[in-house]
Amino acid sequence: MHIVITGGAGFLGARLARTLLEQGQLALAGAAPQSIQSITLVDRAAPPADLAADSRIHSLVGDLNHLLEAKTATDQPIWAQAALIFHLAAAVSGECEANFDLGMRSNIDATRALLEVCRLQGSCPTVVFASSLAVFGNSAAQPLPAVIDDRTLPTPQNSYGIQKFICEQLVADYGRKGFICARNVRLMTVSVRPGKPNGAASSFLSGMIREPLAGVRAACPVPKDTAVALSSPASTIAGLIRSATATDAEWGARTAINLPALTTTVGAMASALEKLGGKAATDLIDWTPEPAIASIVTSWPAVIDAARARALGLLPDPDFESIVADYIRDEMSENPHIKPAS
Amino acid sequence: MHIVITGGAGFLGARLARTLLEQGQLALAGAAPQSIQSITLVDRAAPPADLAADSRIHSLVGDLNHLLEAKTATDQPIWAQAALIFHLAAAVSGECEANFDLGMRSNIDATRALLEVCRLQGSCPTVVFASSLAVFGNSAAQPLPAVIDDRTLPTPQNSYGIQKFICEQLVADYGRKGFICARNVRLMTVSVRPGKPNGAASSFLSGMIREPLAGVRAACPVPKDTAVALSSPASTIAGLIRSATATDAEWGARTAINLPALTTTVGAMASALEKLGGKAATDLIDWTPEPAIASIVTSWPAVIDAARARALGLLPDPDFESIVADYIRDEMSENPHIKPAS
Repeated sequence: MHIVITGGAGFLGARLARTLLEQGQLALAGAAPQSIQSITLVDRAAPPADLAADSRIHSLVGDLNHLLEAKTATDQPIWAQAALIFHLAAAVSGECEANFDLGMRSNIDATRALLEVCRLQGSCPTVVFASSLAVFGNSAAQPLPAVIDDRTLPTPQNSYGIQKFICEQLVADYGRKGFICARNVRLMTVSVRPGKPNGAASSFLSGMIREPLAGVRAACPVPKDTAVALSSPASTIAGLIRSATATDAEWGARTAINLPALTTTVGAMASALEKLGGKAATDLIDWTPEPAIASIVTSWPAVIDAARARALGLLPDPDFESIVADYIRDEMSENPHIKPAS
Repeated sequence: MHIVITGGAGFLGARLARTLLEQGQLALAGAAPQSIQSITLVDRAAPPADLAADSRIHSLVGDLNHLLEAKTATDQPIWAQAALIFHLAAAVSGECEANFDLGMRSNIDATRALLEVCRLQGSCPTVVFASSLAVFGNSAAQPLPAVIDDRTLPTPQNSYGIQKFICEQLVADYGRKGFICARNVRLMTVSVRPGKPNGAASSFLSGMIREPLAGVRAACPVPKDTAVALSSPASTIAGLIRSATATDAEWGARTAINLPALTTTVGAMASALEKLGGKAATDLIDWTPEPAIASIVTSWPAVIDAARARALGLLPDPDFESIVADYIRDEMSENPHIKPAS
């Protein structure tokens, strides 16, 4: 089986590739398990060294919109060979809000071009589209219900959410037409992400843990009682892979499923950090309100009833402390700054 | 005030123009009433003769996508001058299902181009986007609720519905960004339309009345107990105009409102026809099942709780007999085939 991951050199894409390589095989949409022969990481950036060193990893480096132009795509057999495409590449929420055209191009145009390439190939690959919690937006004119479920009407309040929701519709219709096998899956905010801050409005939800654990100051731009819906990297990857293995009957409607989320608050996150990293860590958090960020983040829902995901066996992380512990184990084994509380 | 109507030479567009000319002025979004100086009808076809003869009517004839290309649009001062744009032009449901690319181009690409022209002009016109009941689709995997309201999650089951729903999202976000004043309004199936059958799956819902009244045979491709949600031409036009006059506060959320609909059945429609046109009329209906049409039409909802429209003073037609009577009065005054039952 050949797999493509767009955004494959990013944190989630690379972790997804590692997990797939580790398990070595995949039972796509309920079919018999097949060994994973290759994974092509499509990204602006080259793959991380560990992945680049694996003979099963290929990479296609460049601008996704350009790579997907019909003429260019025809030169790349990866599109014709792929039985499974994880479409993770996207401009993130903060970027899209600052640069409207960037979001329209990188999110809508690129997704549509990807779907067109699938259609032109005629091989009906499974496409797992990484949508987002950001399709839900709270507003005074149309308050969100207290609990979001799989039938809640998305009313996005930022361009990123609009673009993701539009792509869900495209993916659903390309699926209905038989051009692809459609798997629309809404990712929750992933925390704790390793690496550097990015342009996502939610970036601080990793930074406020990651930076203090590394002895670096970090800003938290929202009040402590701000409720958020989070998913660990491991749970998020599990959700993406389960979306690919679900049969049509297990999956149900082509509309998006919400992945499960742990509901917590920014204050409780800081408490979990303090338990594992000590007061020295939480002292490094600057509680500096930033209205532009806060207005995006507080428009997202915090409580998710992820019934369809639950039926697929996907559950939220049990608590934020275990998420932080996982981060320390997975990403910080050689970091001298961690000083677990005794 | 200058107004643009895309699809302005079509039945609804022309009737909208006539109604606007008759009233002579408009209080846009709660502002003081202004006289209507010009209405530009943008369409592939030239305007009907009565409209072409009115000095306030201008026309721009051509392919909408072409007319909206940035360079072409710059040559047309109508886009910069328009305080109000009714965007009615679209490829219809049957066409879009048969020709996927046509729908993507005529519905999504054209709407996006129109919104871009508005954005580039920088004059923030009010854009009334004619979305459709077809955003709602019933499916075994995700049955629609018995009653549709303004917060029901659309799950379109055909490309036309997907495309309309995507355009709603674009209109909402261009509105949120301040590029336009956004008015997303979902039209119900309009019956009785005058003129000829078109490529809409719902075309027969006018044809089964219009043709027999003209002494011509007509097919009804669905069973008599098929429930449908209808709106007369007059009620539909009233909904479009009220959308333009509503203040932001009256309008509320940028998500679409459902216009009100009369819930009836195809059998009850035939009974109303018989009352007004006699048995000679209903004898001209061929009850010939067509699964392709039936599967689209029966996937649409039949009962609408149009609360937001109601709050704007918009109510459904009282019964189908009055809709047929209006059609006979408005459209058939010189037609010799009408033989009202005594």
